[in-house]
Amino acid sequence: MPELRKDPVVGRWVIISTDRALRPSDFAPESVQLKTTHCVFCEGNEDKTPPEILVARAPGRPENGPGWTYRVVSNKFPALRIEGELEPEAEGLFDRMNGVGAHEVIIETPDHRASLATMPLDAVADVLLAYRERVRDLKKDSRFEYVLVFKNHGEAAGASLEHPHSQLIATPITPIMVTEELLGSARYFERKERCVWCDILRQERRDRRRAILERDGFSVIMPFAPRFPFESWLLPSRHRSAFEECELDDLRALGRVLQEYLRRLNAVLGDPPYNFMLHTAPLREPALAHFHWHLEIIPKLTRVAGFEWGSGFFINSVRPEDAAAALREVADSAMLY
Amino acid sequence: MPELRKDPVVGRWVIISTDRALRPSDFAPESVQLKTTHCVFCEGNEDKTPPEILVARAPGRPENGPGWTYRVVSNKFPALRIEGELEPEAEGLFDRMNGVGAHEVIIETPDHRASLATMPLDAVADVLLAYRERVRDLKKDSRFEYVLVFKNHGEAAGASLEHPHSQLIATPITPIMVTEELLGSARYFERKERCVWCDILRQERRDRRRAILERDGFSVIMPFAPRFPFESWLLPSRHRSAFEECELDDLRALGRVLQEYLRRLNAVLGDPPYNFMLHTAPLREPALAHFHWHLEIIPKLTRVAGFEWGSGFFINSVRPEDAAAALREVADSAMLY
Repeated sequence: MPELRKDPVVGRWVIISTDRALRPSDFAPESVQLKTTHCVFCEGNEDKTPPEILVARAPGRPENGPGWTYRVVSNKFPALRIEGELEPEAEGLFDRMNGVGAHEVIIETPDHRASLATMPLDAVADVLLAYRERVRDLKKDSRFEYVLVFKNHGEAAGASLEHPHSQLIATPITPIMVTEELLGSARYFERKERCVWCDILRQERRDRRRAILERDGFSVIMPFAPRFPFESWLLPSRHRSAFEECELDDLRALGRVLQEYLRRLNAVLGDPPYNFMLHTAPLREPALAHFHWHLEIIPKLTRVAGFEWGSGFFINSVRPEDAAAALREVADSAMLY
Repeated sequence: MPELRKDPVVGRWVIISTDRALRPSDFAPESVQLKTTHCVFCEGNEDKTPPEILVARAPGRPENGPGWTYRVVSNKFPALRIEGELEPEAEGLFDRMNGVGAHEVIIETPDHRASLATMPLDAVADVLLAYRERVRDLKKDSRFEYVLVFKNHGEAAGASLEHPHSQLIATPITPIMVTEELLGSARYFERKERCVWCDILRQERRDRRRAILERDGFSVIMPFAPRFPFESWLLPSRHRSAFEECELDDLRALGRVLQEYLRRLNAVLGDPPYNFMLHTAPLREPALAHFHWHLEIIPKLTRVAGFEWGSGFFINSVRPEDAAAALREVADSAMLY
């Protein structure tokens, strides 16, 4: 029997319908395959990107040249533009404003063939540090309300370049997905005086139905009502509302947990394309008792079609309990690189 | 300069960023190509589908055999099941219920190679009649709150079989996308005492910025803040909240407008994959002064990636004014089949 499940944060219902996994087209994980060995993000091509905003480079080496471990540059084709003011105005009954914002690329490594799953742990921690530093810096720009850090891994997940990179977009409006989580978690807090994610973590720690791993202050679980097969949440085990408050030790622990999660995912699904997106408190908020920052990770295994676009329901053909068990049970030897 | 635009119904912001159309991977319309010539939905294979729920067949021909013009059958791999009660219950802090619903397939024609753009107008009107009849019938089942009629055309738009077909899913909960439109349009009505879609139609009729076509009581426009390139709305020119109230004449006019729209779309984009989804008032609602039924049509031209999944913002690289002009300007001769 299919199930309807409700997400306790945003109230979204999803359909867990495992019978549909029988459909041959429903579940065809497509491994990420490299088609090139060299690109504009590779070492030596620094002049093919906009200039560096942030970089980790060996001392004495010139700017915008080789010898770096990560680089942050503006997106050459930005969705939003850094210059100008919002100038909100009407067009008849409609509302518009200028598309002011920042759109940056975090080039995670000079190595075209590396990935967050295979890089040295120090390098993963450095990428997370780059996220933090850029969020802290963009916070100083009073035009911005939010910075969304995200990653598209693999062409099927929307990556237009295969060199390991993440992106961030700073927006003058808090994204609706984050607003819905803020509103839903505030409603929960009003009733219970507790953070809903802290309650979820307690329940998963107790019955372990959807727990994947917990280590060094970070937890990975699957949500009760995931939109997509293997959708996962990585979050601090103790309540924290703002990612950018992470200390260096936290980032290293986070990197270790993220890397272990990705290695488990690769062992089960064979290097699938994926997206991840960082949900943290909006830039102008103080520490929030009801909001718990988290990374949402979505392997790209299925297509979204008319029913999902028309309804907002998602049909998920894998129970999160089964997916979590598969990820938990990966042998250590299967995770070696 | 990119623009931020707000949808006046649901309040969703989108980013209109035409510079990004420069990215070569951003815009690669992929024509729908047939890979087979015969399938389980073809005439002669009636025993390979569940039995007919509704059919148009020549008199005297036996049920579940050849000689039909359209057939409605249960989906062989239903997302929801018709049997049983909801039995809502808790799992700790989570909420679930049984996945009760109906999931049906409307096989639009016996001809594997036909399409709504190329079929005789009578056949298109018959498909719309099948939609209406099934909605009216499912309305009698008090467990259901909504019937979502939708179509996935082409593999990239999620069609797992290429034979022309639509689907419907009846759900015990009104989909959140429809709920958001109901709430947004009720707020608008409260302020203005007018239907927001009627106001939009008036504005588009006056300045024609995003108008595509209007004929026989139906209009096609592009929304001011479309999520996707060429996203369009087809709606009755006069206020109506429930699709299933359409008379036969209305369905024929609707079929003609839908077909002309699809022919224009094909002339501009070369038979792109697309989804359409019918948004109508929930089954238990009386006639609503604030809600206007409409068909949302989304050509599948781009990928949705981390930024969209994480933020709920959509980045659209084609201004709807430009897309509407391209569709308006198709010569009659380019629409002949």
